[in-house]
Amino acid sequence: MDRIPILRMGETLLVTIQIDMQDQTAIALQDDLANKIAATGASGVMIDISALEIVDSFVGRMLSSISGIARILSATTVVVGMQPAVAITLVELGLSLEGVKTALNVERGMELLRRTREEQALGR
Amino acid sequence: MDRIPILRMGETLLVTIQIDMQDQTAIALQDDLANKIAATGASGVMIDISALEIVDSFVGRMLSSISGIARILSATTVVVGMQPAVAITLVELGLSLEGVKTALNVERGMELLRRTREEQALGR
Repeated sequence: MDRIPILRMGETLLVTIQIDMQDQTAIALQDDLANKIAATGASGVMIDISALEIVDSFVGRMLSSISGIARILSATTVVVGMQPAVAITLVELGLSLEGVKTALNVERGMELLRRTREEQALGR
Repeated sequence: MDRIPILRMGETLLVTIQIDMQDQTAIALQDDLANKIAATGASGVMIDISALEIVDSFVGRMLSSISGIARILSATTVVVGMQPAVAITLVELGLSLEGVKTALNVERGMELLRRTREEQALGR
């Protein structure tokens, strides 16, 4: 069982990361997400990392990469649930999560995605 | 990392099970869910098991047990994303998931919880 499930909730795809990411799992997740965005026409991707106590440069790069892939497929990515210690470590490591939007929790993330969708609909 | 994250989405708590459940993880999940239902006043619990290729009697009992605990705390539990092979195995094993509601996917599960909430509000 090394594929992370992707849940569809309306216009948003939700992924909860619970396990330490290995290369294979990360690549599979990127592939699955890209396919699912294309198949469903989802406009948002939410990645919950509240279970992660450590985010190293590998996971940081993966988040940036997913965000980049999603953007090309016209979907916005929001990372939610980051633990304070993880944020501190990321900054200490010099990892800025380039191009990745974040929100405190799922509800705020949903709100952010909804606003982004409305702005895009208005052509801003 | 052996605690399964519980995501709050409005009135609903969402859990995605991605790993083979061990006794400790299952007990921790039951505790966490009970506490979170009490703390948030959530009226629904959604458990996604789309990543599980095997559901044995242990997991079956755990789902029934979570559902029972949630009911006492006045929340409805819906299990979503069950793979067809899992359903077949459950029936062959004689496990009927007593008292557990199911739905095909997260969206239908949300719809089911919404309807249940409305019926309860009407006092049926």
